[in-house]
Amino acid sequence: MDGKICLCSAGVLQNINGPEDLKNLKMCCLQTLAGEIRSFLIEKISQTGGHIASNLGVVELTIVLHTVFQSPRDKIIWDVGHQTYVHKILTGRRDQLATIRQMGGISGFPKITESEHDCFNTGHSSTSISAALGMARARDLMGDNYNVIAVIGDGALTGGMAFEALNDAGNSKTNLIVVLNDNEMSISKNVGALSRYLSRIRTEPIYYKVRTDFQTLVDNIPAIGKSARKVLHKVKGSLKYLLLPGVFFEELGFHYYGPLDGHNISEMYRVFQRVKNLKEPVLIHVCTKKGRGYSPAEEKPQKYHGVSPFDVETGKVLSESNGSFSKVFGKKLVELAEKHKEIVAITAAMPEGTGLSLFSEKFPKRFFDVGIAEQHAVTMAAGLAIRGLRPVVAVYSSFLQRAYDQIIHDVSLMNLNVIFAVDRAGIVGDDGETHQGIYDIALFSTLPNITIMSPADYDELEKMLEFAVEDGKGPIAIRYPRGQGKRNLAPDIPIEFGKAVKIMDGGDITIAVTGHMLEIAVEAAKELEKYGIHSDVLYYRFIKPFDTGLLCKSLKKTCLLMTVEDHIKSGGFGSIALFKLNEAGMNIPVEVAAFPDIPIEHGKRELLYHKYGLDSKSLAERVLKRLKSRGDM
Amino acid sequence: MDGKICLCSAGVLQNINGPEDLKNLKMCCLQTLAGEIRSFLIEKISQTGGHIASNLGVVELTIVLHTVFQSPRDKIIWDVGHQTYVHKILTGRRDQLATIRQMGGISGFPKITESEHDCFNTGHSSTSISAALGMARARDLMGDNYNVIAVIGDGALTGGMAFEALNDAGNSKTNLIVVLNDNEMSISKNVGALSRYLSRIRTEPIYYKVRTDFQTLVDNIPAIGKSARKVLHKVKGSLKYLLLPGVFFEELGFHYYGPLDGHNISEMYRVFQRVKNLKEPVLIHVCTKKGRGYSPAEEKPQKYHGVSPFDVETGKVLSESNGSFSKVFGKKLVELAEKHKEIVAITAAMPEGTGLSLFSEKFPKRFFDVGIAEQHAVTMAAGLAIRGLRPVVAVYSSFLQRAYDQIIHDVSLMNLNVIFAVDRAGIVGDDGETHQGIYDIALFSTLPNITIMSPADYDELEKMLEFAVEDGKGPIAIRYPRGQGKRNLAPDIPIEFGKAVKIMDGGDITIAVTGHMLEIAVEAAKELEKYGIHSDVLYYRFIKPFDTGLLCKSLKKTCLLMTVEDHIKSGGFGSIALFKLNEAGMNIPVEVAAFPDIPIEHGKRELLYHKYGLDSKSLAERVLKRLKSRGDM
Repeated sequence: MDGKICLCSAGVLQNINGPEDLKNLKMCCLQTLAGEIRSFLIEKISQTGGHIASNLGVVELTIVLHTVFQSPRDKIIWDVGHQTYVHKILTGRRDQLATIRQMGGISGFPKITESEHDCFNTGHSSTSISAALGMARARDLMGDNYNVIAVIGDGALTGGMAFEALNDAGNSKTNLIVVLNDNEMSISKNVGALSRYLSRIRTEPIYYKVRTDFQTLVDNIPAIGKSARKVLHKVKGSLKYLLLPGVFFEELGFHYYGPLDGHNISEMYRVFQRVKNLKEPVLIHVCTKKGRGYSPAEEKPQKYHGVSPFDVETGKVLSESNGSFSKVFGKKLVELAEKHKEIVAITAAMPEGTGLSLFSEKFPKRFFDVGIAEQHAVTMAAGLAIRGLRPVVAVYSSFLQRAYDQIIHDVSLMNLNVIFAVDRAGIVGDDGETHQGIYDIALFSTLPNITIMSPADYDELEKMLEFAVEDGKGPIAIRYPRGQGKRNLAPDIPIEFGKAVKIMDGGDITIAVTGHMLEIAVEAAKELEKYGIHSDVLYYRFIKPFDTGLLCKSLKKTCLLMTVEDHIKSGGFGSIALFKLNEAGMNIPVEVAAFPDIPIEHGKRELLYHKYGLDSKSLAERVLKRLKSRGDM
Repeated sequence: MDGKICLCSAGVLQNINGPEDLKNLKMCCLQTLAGEIRSFLIEKISQTGGHIASNLGVVELTIVLHTVFQSPRDKIIWDVGHQTYVHKILTGRRDQLATIRQMGGISGFPKITESEHDCFNTGHSSTSISAALGMARARDLMGDNYNVIAVIGDGALTGGMAFEALNDAGNSKTNLIVVLNDNEMSISKNVGALSRYLSRIRTEPIYYKVRTDFQTLVDNIPAIGKSARKVLHKVKGSLKYLLLPGVFFEELGFHYYGPLDGHNISEMYRVFQRVKNLKEPVLIHVCTKKGRGYSPAEEKPQKYHGVSPFDVETGKVLSESNGSFSKVFGKKLVELAEKHKEIVAITAAMPEGTGLSLFSEKFPKRFFDVGIAEQHAVTMAAGLAIRGLRPVVAVYSSFLQRAYDQIIHDVSLMNLNVIFAVDRAGIVGDDGETHQGIYDIALFSTLPNITIMSPADYDELEKMLEFAVEDGKGPIAIRYPRGQGKRNLAPDIPIEFGKAVKIMDGGDITIAVTGHMLEIAVEAAKELEKYGIHSDVLYYRFIKPFDTGLLCKSLKKTCLLMTVEDHIKSGGFGSIALFKLNEAGMNIPVEVAAFPDIPIEHGKRELLYHKYGLDSKSLAERVLKRLKSRGDM
């Protein structure tokens, strides 16, 4: 580290405008920088909200990676990607951090369009090793020479595709560095056998010791006969990898290094320097603490996983949310589970986010957190269902994409009684394009035997869940949005299978709407009344089966339909309406109000609805335009 | 085994009408039975075709399972399920084996609707441990008492969801038996680090020996000082699981037993008897030989994986197929790859089936078989693409369902240049509902940035592949059917991005068709000519982007559209046409000829097209009916 400069007293962070600035710094400065980044992160994210805990955990790791490696030449792929704030700070986006996750601002995830240092978009879990292996193979084929590094958490390692990638990479004989960022957490406490294994490595340093001692013993043992020595020799050979921690990874063809203290810059620096030119796949096991350096986050890392703006002093979140669809779901499920002993609940590493924490406390034996493993979650549910239980699988819409094959192959084709609580359906806002839950209607509606419902408000969600448990047959999906809802938006009418409900009776135009967009649709109808236009508003509790009868009846009068949904156009509610009308021999114009088939960016949900013509004013304007064009106005 | 009877001389198989009949037999009879089953299998499957090699491999294993366990009380879940012919023979379906995979006959896979001994439908790989764990947990919660056994191949173990399930099960402390049927094969030779690991276990019995010898050594060693003895003691403790084969599974929380000879009935019998009452997850590693007992299949297990009728004496397949879309694809890709160095090819354990064998021989460094790991295949492709290569991912339509999230999240949202060769798109016939490739248009068409093409014949497939490589941008899917195609069905017109082609010019009715259904659509149009009805036949090379202009132009004359596709109705080609017409302000009746949204059973493809109104005669009748109902006839 000779010839390097020290900026400790001047302030380091303000002088870092790109990773190359790190390379001239003395080791002491890197340590100082870590402290400065933590203060900066806490200050900024307390104002904007965001994924603070995971970022506080990787401060030193990120500094080391950008010191040892040469981004953008070397490729660092961040699994999940919400832990890239430090990376963004160090790669020229320090001053943009205040805009993070806001419309027009920088993303809360890596984005190839945002910086040359973001070499692969992430958002969903467990993709990094696959992407990294692809890049490494491309490098080898093209005769290039750079490092590829995948940084993956122990939580993300429970996702099956990470194992698929390890299995392939371990046999690849290519230079690939996997950094296992082990903080013992998914969003909640990590689960599963592998997690228990990692914890043994962390807590049983005896492995190390036994290996060294044994070697000494074999070297110094008095003559004990040829055959015994031969045996000891064999044992020593086996010990080479058998008594090392990380034998699991060694067996998969990786060279294992660790466990390292992920907050010790110089220790990590030495190991990364050592492995960067190896011509083989390497796994570096780094132990970090989520929330490190900010005690509220260290104590409650779940709470500070993704957090709203908070008070730095007290750690108190400034505007605690007043409930959510998830919480209403969780509470109602507990109520139903008291009565229905056959109910079991499954989450893929999201007990808090899905509202299932309460259920897990009340019915620990009937609750299964399977880790970030949506595929297994769904097929395991199928196994529970086929033996007579009533599993409720609560997963976010965009993560359920990962279990598409299992939903069709293991649930839908066998027509099993599995309830899918599709949380965060519709746009989610701040998390942006990878997390928007706008594909699930298209996903579910093609499947045989399935029922799809979507509640307008909390009351409806409760009713639908009760209906699904007590009257439902076969697979049932209930899709509901992120965040807060209301009560009493829909009239208190009992649910009848497959039936939509008329909410307003107008006769000039028909508005068919599903889910929470009912509120916006009703507002649009009221807006239209100012122009003397009276709407039939039909609320579709059921997307499938689709109530064609009610729609046709209304359309016989109005001859114009607007459909409203929080989903993309392709394969969505409007598309289904068109299809069903055609089957019924009714070919009339339909104004499909939905998101276009493009990636929908991050930003506040209200701003996005407005931008894409899905706020009440825009909806009313669409109708007015239609009416004008056909000469009705 | 006392009090049991011997039927060896009388013939065993004819006396087995259910698994209970096995339980009275002496061990010698089980051995005799194995031989009889092999002869029976070879005789029957040589006539019907089917999955002969994998079934010959599990004869003894299946006999032992049904002898030790009590099906249907105990639940045996067969991963993938094409190896259940022996199971079917032993569970009352011996005499139905002649009907296997034929329309109205028994399925080539387990079907809960077919027998109480089929406790879970399988078809796709790697689902069995998840399903079994669900059943085991249901059993525990309901206070029942039975065994749950998942039988999974080493190939299926490369699928990530199997690992997700192991990770969850290993921590579950429940009675669950996983039988690892290790035959070193997927359909082709198994790949990946885990496969190499299993092969070490099989071939290095030194593990066993070292453990025994070391124990003897420690017991007999002369006094060597307290601290040294302590060290040895620790080593011995570690050896408990470290020197056992199967440490990988032990670390995941399973008790490992093996490797066992999967053709040794008494050895397997003893181990299964021993483990069946353990209150923990157990993994039994059984080594078998695919094709065992039939030398042509032992020598070429790939060829006899799924085979057409063959001559028993010579092993010769009776009617060798004259090419296929897969082979045309494989050959064309090799031709393109000579010229385009950026082309790389990826398969998920299907080098033969996808036609990529030739590519793998010509360009071994540019070819990647990732194992049964579609998720990883797609994201690895994204990694290759983002670094400038042009990956071609060849996967069967129904297996690509498993990578839905990766296609959207890692390819489509980043608009990467990945070509998806969607093989077996449309109904596949004999394999039935789990394998029908009838969801992929719905799956792909919702995704941003993607292009979807579908060739009518071999020439078109070649042209499309060339177009995709030379002119394509972003993700491109080319869907083509199973089996044989033709040449010269479509006119030799260069491909223009997003443009459909008029094949016939009529003016009475518009028929829009995509893919290989062009042939049937043209036949239907010719049929209609007998009634004086002349059709505009539009061939949609591109499903997305959809050529709305050509369609509108035709419909202005005909005012009636029939769409034809080999896909389900929901979200398919007809649904897209309707949607695009509505956007263009054209609301006319559309007869959507496609499969209904129900599971489509097994049977010859021609029979299925006929049954679901998709043969040329049925299509013509649909049009006639429409024309009559609107008074045109």
